[in-house]
Amino acid sequence: MSSSQLPGGTPALRADAERNRTAIVSAARAVFAEVGTDAPVRRVARRAGVAPATLYRRFPTREDLVAAAFAEQHAECSRLLAAADAHHDPWSALRAVVRQFCADQVRDRGFTAHVVLSACSGDAPPGTAGEFAAEAGRLEGLVRRSQESGALRADVRLQDLELLVAGNAGVIAATPTASVATASRRYVDLALRSLET
Amino acid sequence: MSSSQLPGGTPALRADAERNRTAIVSAARAVFAEVGTDAPVRRVARRAGVAPATLYRRFPTREDLVAAAFAEQHAECSRLLAAADAHHDPWSALRAVVRQFCADQVRDRGFTAHVVLSACSGDAPPGTAGEFAAEAGRLEGLVRRSQESGALRADVRLQDLELLVAGNAGVIAATPTASVATASRRYVDLALRSLET
Repeated sequence: MSSSQLPGGTPALRADAERNRTAIVSAARAVFAEVGTDAPVRRVARRAGVAPATLYRRFPTREDLVAAAFAEQHAECSRLLAAADAHHDPWSALRAVVRQFCADQVRDRGFTAHVVLSACSGDAPPGTAGEFAAEAGRLEGLVRRSQESGALRADVRLQDLELLVAGNAGVIAATPTASVATASRRYVDLALRSLET
Repeated sequence: MSSSQLPGGTPALRADAERNRTAIVSAARAVFAEVGTDAPVRRVARRAGVAPATLYRRFPTREDLVAAAFAEQHAECSRLLAAADAHHDPWSALRAVVRQFCADQVRDRGFTAHVVLSACSGDAPPGTAGEFAAEAGRLEGLVRRSQESGALRADVRLQDLELLVAGNAGVIAATPTASVATASRRYVDLALRSLET
């Protein structure tokens, strides 16, 4: 059915659907941030102010909902890593990626929990296996080239970066909101120093 | 009333009271580990299998209960720090203290949350202000002498050790149980390296 068949009606319905989708994704991010990505889907629907059936129609599985909730940050991660890949100094680029990611953790603890727990347990976040593998591959390339350049210690592995990021989550959890950005920056400076030759 | 006035009875009563006390302290540690030191006191009584009134008679305030629950680890911390204080090489002693504390975190996450959150928020854990100040003073002495010996970077502060320990809590939280001890040891090795000249 084209919009010319129902002039006025269909664009309004589309605007409604778009508003619902935005409300659901925003509610999912908030609920996942509070209680993790295994939160009851009905709780997301309630927070979004939509019927559970509406939510299930847009997001048939939990994986669909999780992927939508974190799509923006994943896209940002991918852009960051692509830019780092093209940088002439791999260790400087890798440090910038770690700093940016750790600053994102401070701003969005839901994303942190989602990505960090997945990375450390060796599983891709649900619904994001493809991007996750691509990002891990780019990070491994940066680690290798940073070592070849002589800036990064030869014994450092990708898993060490995951430990660093998990540690940042611990710093964020333990620090009062007023000083968390400063504490996290100091922690990241120290952690990066531990990896240098 | 001395035990000679009620031969047989009083020692049995004392044994009962001691059993109750042990059960309460053990239940408190378990409940605090699960949900933090602001857990409902009635939940501790239920886990210990005693009436709330029995618990309140032994531990009139939450602070009394928290202090009893963590008394053993605090005593161990104090012994460790006293030994470190007497060591001829302050940086070697300080590293041993950090390694031991971080290994304790792996074994007892309740103690971790209790001490780390308190340290990072700048407050002494409830009921432990005196010991906490003494331990912080000893740690500050070790930091200063490690810097004087030339082993520890001049810009390192006691707060950096707290960040390190908060980070270890993050590593512990993010890592599956089977690999948590290895991950934490690696994390601590890296973190200590970041502090050296």
